[in-house]
Amino acid sequence: MSMRTMNIGMIGYKFMGRAHSNGWLQSQRFFDTEIAPVLKAVCGRHEEPLKEFADRWGWEETISDWRALIARDDIDIIDVAAPQYLHYDIALAAAKAGKHIFMEKPLALSVEQAQEMVDVIGDRPIVHYLNHNYRRCPAVRLAKRLIDEGRIGRIYHWRGAYLQEWAADPEYPLTWQMKKTKAGSGPHGDLNSHSIDLARYLVGEIAQVSAMMTRFIAERPLPDAQASAFSRNAGITTGTGKVTVEDASFMTVMFENGALGSFDATRFATGRKNAHTFEIYGSRGALIFDLERMNELQYYCNDDHEGEKGFRTIMATEPVHEYASAWWPPGHIIGYEHTFVHAAADFLQAIAEKTEIRPNFFDGLQEMIILEAGIKSAAEGRTIIID
Amino acid sequence: MSMRTMNIGMIGYKFMGRAHSNGWLQSQRFFDTEIAPVLKAVCGRHEEPLKEFADRWGWEETISDWRALIARDDIDIIDVAAPQYLHYDIALAAAKAGKHIFMEKPLALSVEQAQEMVDVIGDRPIVHYLNHNYRRCPAVRLAKRLIDEGRIGRIYHWRGAYLQEWAADPEYPLTWQMKKTKAGSGPHGDLNSHSIDLARYLVGEIAQVSAMMTRFIAERPLPDAQASAFSRNAGITTGTGKVTVEDASFMTVMFENGALGSFDATRFATGRKNAHTFEIYGSRGALIFDLERMNELQYYCNDDHEGEKGFRTIMATEPVHEYASAWWPPGHIIGYEHTFVHAAADFLQAIAEKTEIRPNFFDGLQEMIILEAGIKSAAEGRTIIID
Amino acid sequence: MSMRTMNIGMIGYKFMGRAHSNGWLQSQRFFDTEIAPVLKAVCGRHEEPLKEFADRWGWEETISDWRALIARDDIDIIDVAAPQYLHYDIALAAAKAGKHIFMEKPLALSVEQAQEMVDVIGDRPIVHYLNHNYRRCPAVRLAKRLIDEGRIGRIYHWRGAYLQEWAADPEYPLTWQMKKTKAGSGPHGDLNSHSIDLARYLVGEIAQVSAMMTRFIAERPLPDAQASAFSRNAGITTGTGKVTVEDASFMTVMFENGALGSFDATRFATGRKNAHTFEIYGSRGALIFDLERMNELQYYCNDDHEGEKGFRTIMATEPVHEYASAWWPPGHIIGYEHTFVHAAADFLQAIAEKTEIRPNFFDGLQEMIILEAGIKSAAEGRTIIID
Amino acid sequence: MSMRTMNIGMIGYKFMGRAHSNGWLQSQRFFDTEIAPVLKAVCGRHEEPLKEFADRWGWEETISDWRALIARDDIDIIDVAAPQYLHYDIALAAAKAGKHIFMEKPLALSVEQAQEMVDVIGDRPIVHYLNHNYRRCPAVRLAKRLIDEGRIGRIYHWRGAYLQEWAADPEYPLTWQMKKTKAGSGPHGDLNSHSIDLARYLVGEIAQVSAMMTRFIAERPLPDAQASAFSRNAGITTGTGKVTVEDASFMTVMFENGALGSFDATRFATGRKNAHTFEIYGSRGALIFDLERMNELQYYCNDDHEGEKGFRTIMATEPVHEYASAWWPPGHIIGYEHTFVHAAADFLQAIAEKTEIRPNFFDGLQEMIILEAGIKSAAEGRTIIID
Repeated sequence: MSMRTMNIGMIGYKFMGRAHSNGWLQSQRFFDTEIAPVLKAVCGRHEEPLKEFADRWGWEETISDWRALIARDDIDIIDVAAPQYLHYDIALAAAKAGKHIFMEKPLALSVEQAQEMVDVIGDRPIVHYLNHNYRRCPAVRLAKRLIDEGRIGRIYHWRGAYLQEWAADPEYPLTWQMKKTKAGSGPHGDLNSHSIDLARYLVGEIAQVSAMMTRFIAERPLPDAQASAFSRNAGITTGTGKVTVEDASFMTVMFENGALGSFDATRFATGRKNAHTFEIYGSRGALIFDLERMNELQYYCNDDHEGEKGFRTIMATEPVHEYASAWWPPGHIIGYEHTFVHAAADFLQAIAEKTEIRPNFFDGLQEMIILEAGIKSAAEGRTIIID
Repeated sequence: MSMRTMNIGMIGYKFMGRAHSNGWLQSQRFFDTEIAPVLKAVCGRHEEPLKEFADRWGWEETISDWRALIARDDIDIIDVAAPQYLHYDIALAAAKAGKHIFMEKPLALSVEQAQEMVDVIGDRPIVHYLNHNYRRCPAVRLAKRLIDEGRIGRIYHWRGAYLQEWAADPEYPLTWQMKKTKAGSGPHGDLNSHSIDLARYLVGEIAQVSAMMTRFIAERPLPDAQASAFSRNAGITTGTGKVTVEDASFMTVMFENGALGSFDATRFATGRKNAHTFEIYGSRGALIFDLERMNELQYYCNDDHEGEKGFRTIMATEPVHEYASAWWPPGHIIGYEHTFVHAAADFLQAIAEKTEIRPNFFDGLQEMIILEAGIKSAAEGRTIIID
Repeated sequence: MSMRTMNIGMIGYKFMGRAHSNGWLQSQRFFDTEIAPVLKAVCGRHEEPLKEFADRWGWEETISDWRALIARDDIDIIDVAAPQYLHYDIALAAAKAGKHIFMEKPLALSVEQAQEMVDVIGDRPIVHYLNHNYRRCPAVRLAKRLIDEGRIGRIYHWRGAYLQEWAADPEYPLTWQMKKTKAGSGPHGDLNSHSIDLARYLVGEIAQVSAMMTRFIAERPLPDAQASAFSRNAGITTGTGKVTVEDASFMTVMFENGALGSFDATRFATGRKNAHTFEIYGSRGALIFDLERMNELQYYCNDDHEGEKGFRTIMATEPVHEYASAWWPPGHIIGYEHTFVHAAADFLQAIAEKTEIRPNFFDGLQEMIILEAGIKSAAEGRTIIID
Repeated sequence: MSMRTMNIGMIGYKFMGRAHSNGWLQSQRFFDTEIAPVLKAVCGRHEEPLKEFADRWGWEETISDWRALIARDDIDIIDVAAPQYLHYDIALAAAKAGKHIFMEKPLALSVEQAQEMVDVIGDRPIVHYLNHNYRRCPAVRLAKRLIDEGRIGRIYHWRGAYLQEWAADPEYPLTWQMKKTKAGSGPHGDLNSHSIDLARYLVGEIAQVSAMMTRFIAERPLPDAQASAFSRNAGITTGTGKVTVEDASFMTVMFENGALGSFDATRFATGRKNAHTFEIYGSRGALIFDLERMNELQYYCNDDHEGEKGFRTIMATEPVHEYASAWWPPGHIIGYEHTFVHAAADFLQAIAEKTEIRPNFFDGLQEMIILEAGIKSAAEGRTIIID
């Protein structure tokens, strides 16, 4: 059990607020961290739902002004679960205030923002984390270990995809994820960013990108929140608005180590709920991962006997698999939110051990550079070389 | 958020104690129950680990005597996470004390015990639950709904299997699960009981059973706990003991509705971590479930167009799937322990609504009758008809 | 290319007649046998379709009396593709005439018949083959090799199933396969016989059987052939007839080597076209096969590194896989009829080398003994021990 | 049975010669074509193996000069199974001689060649076929039917891949497939051409392409044929040569109908034997195909009930599936070479019916245009718009 405690102030209390809160709480049930998190204050704009959220998750206080939260001396960690257009301002304030930062991805809306955020961090003694949580699936950790041990050999290919279907319905409303001002970009930033993080983690840095993007549906009904009470009651559609991000982004890349890769991201893959997959092919073996079956890793070992080679489905639920022994016996699977628990535990431990945690703001900057190169490539119809 | 509270006293704090504690806690984060559970007291024999467990999970008190726990007026619910040879005594005491009972499966060591437990419950106004948690996988609920709606039609077949591998290693020690006095039986009771519960839930009552059982390894090393400190230190094996349960049990059954079924349970299926699977074939469709991919249900719809029929893999993670909307968006999977959370929430709600919850002690009795018929069948080499 | 030739006389020209004819012809395109088959004469009762069949497949002559065919001196090989109720008479005549026999499975209608067939063969210098063609899938051969090399270790379990769906429709007519006098039994003989052959090939002899059988649909419409021309023209159903075989047979067995096994056979598994599957679990590994993906073998190797074990899907299409190099490059699959080609080639080669081929009549007798024990077990509700 | 016959002259007798010969022969066993093919003459340079090939497959004559073959009056059909650098000359001669042409893919080495071939064909009354055989998998035909019926709706995405592994081994020799002069290009032409053909067949014409290509291994050992007899005997490697084609080609495309697509082709995907796959996502459904499981099509129907949707695995072996009824009952799979049989039957029937067959030389030209655009895109690092 943890002896030291640290106070967390979390900004945002929607989907990610839940996932983060659960991460902090469960980290103490299933892991042994030297520092125990105290859910001190949660910040949001709408008092009633914020209060209800705080009650449910055990946050001691609510607060409406995130700047005031960051200013408090009793807050050690700022947990950023707010929409991404706020990341920049929050991160700058938090870093300047010397807070440790646990930030939801993506880091920022642009390379410019990201660069400034990294600069402000500088060499301040703070732990910063960018929550690409899928690095912390036991199966992904197994992939990493095999690669690091040389078991995959020289890597020839990365084939990443992140396929969702929710926007394929033209009646799906114009949410903030479809507005460039709020979201920065569409699936390129939302989904490819996850793939890019895993590719950088597992394969290495990206040297060249060539992307093609498209928009299938240009205009959508406004969401209810923007419709008047009257028209809602009357069932009247109050109008439509323009989609200002791409609907899909397909990208090919060359890695610095010479591997050739692809990234397909879309919100228009009918039938795909959350198909975040990758395939890695190397001289000694290959790996396949699918987030919808996140407890499994497929591994092809080229050293197996002739005629006996095949992709093996490994259940990454054995004691030998990272994080797995904290949970249940072999074959008893874990789910989506467990990756947040792993992140919370590792983040707390990084603070205790005065070490860094990855991915962090530096990774986020690199990721933004790649994403922006992709956008530029699609706009200009040419391959962009990353400096 | 819950307004009323009820105090829980839990007996046992090992694997199941963790899973139950987590179930109670998470039920309040993700579900809205009218009654909130208070983790009042946890009972065990070894003070130090018990204390550590209580601290970790937030149990207010520890207690070493389960009879004293049951005797307390401030305890509303007895949670039985103790080994099964204690179930009978605990249940009788708890029922007589008017406590609601949340009991880990299986109900008892014998039909005789189970019958008495049911008799003692009688018409006492208590909610009793037997934790066959897999009924509460969203995918299993979907199977149930499809069957209840007649979408599978007349059921012809059940093919159930529960395959594990852990005992295939001859060096695996002689744990209590391999002693008849402690466990009642081997995989027949441990694993087939789960399959039988799902079969009764989804197909109906069983009318005839014919079982064949075997023991592959008759003698095993004693576990460390039974070895002396000296020999342990010296690395000396202190001897072996006899396995007194079966290692595998394969059973065929006839259901009351005429369906023909099979149940294969073993601890010797190398490569199978926790392969709890079923297949159901009916006149209008078919269903396949695999616990290792518990978020998925395979469904074959015979009403689909000719030439377009096939087993569909449904991700039971949509809002329309029972329990799923409490968690994450479609395609974001849940894990093993979530079924305990669902059970905890449903149990609390049953108390609030003064209704029953299934499976309960009556189901447990029926299950024991089938299990004992299987044992008798294997011993006598003949089909046993269940009255 | 073959230098010697042998003349074949085939009895029967329906489904199996096609598959056998194709087997003989393709064996000469893709394999090198010392003896080349000559498609000399095909025997059937209906002249017109028989003639058409002979033209299509290149049979030199047609003949209507199988006894006359067997009596001919210029016939070296009798290929029995006739319904199974004729197997006994044909085999006796062919054996007495000293012909090599290529016989479609199952051997006979009863143990009594099968025993007499084996007795008549005695030590005559003829090659006899029983066409359980699935032994000759490259993937099954790979399974056999792994077992023979000890790679699976001591075998604990066999789980065989042969699931089809075609009889689940109550309107499906009463064909000869549903009449005991013609077929001997239902899926027990038709489907379980295939599973039993593979189980004997891969695991060993069976010592005890316990079976449960059932009939779901007792009466069915008569097939058109039995309806009068008038009523057919008028669209009038001319009546129904009784099904006299079982619709499903589920069986558990104990092998002589102590392995515990199951066999589930049915024609009522909606959604299953031809799901002939087996799973074998041993102390060092496990194997899974599915005829609908007959080019693949799943193999679990318990000697793989801890945490890296999993079922591998091996494409048995490599040069190292038996029969595979005769066909196409790796990853280019073969289909159902290729197993007949392999059988034809092996049979011809066995004659040339004056050796035996398996499975043969002896295997067929053993299989009949097991099948009859299953029938007896189901009828008497008890385990039958095989002498 | 066919009444008319036509004489075939085939050029080439290696891998494709076998597959084509088998296609012609089996077409007469399993299909009813109005024209029967006569295997008149096969052409090759090495007399002995050519003679052996002719004997095995029943070719009446052998001939060493393909121009002489084409010049013969008794030849109706020229079957081009020769390496692709000969396609141009052969096709021109054959077309001018008024022969029907059954040509192995790809059409030519360049757009220039292909254009001239198409021009020479002009409106001559000849049937010309380009053997992209995978269009004739029953499962691909099912995909086509579903798309044509509007069941997939507006198509948003194509994700095609053709992954092989054979070149990943640096010791694999420098075969003609790795020389630009002989092969035109590497996997881009060899593998992507197949994907492009299916994409054009199923999705539509391609408007823009952006490709990235790479070479992993620049130099390889010379194959044995180029080594001297002495050094071969002595086991001496006689040197290495330069690979002059790409090793992998990843391409993104925009279709004319607005769909965004990707094509990943490589010979360096360790573990992948012949993984030719596609995914198609549309507004009403989705489709997945994998050549290694070529009897199956996965179909997601967005019109299924809420909560019951999922990718269905359809076995395209039912009578309703194109070509399937010619073979075996449902669930009995066919293999790689069957697609050649379908092509042969369709080609013969097209001649008889004086109609065209697809894909043909026009398709081949269009495919070459796309392939060359890909090469140009990779060379120039920019998106190429196809006129």
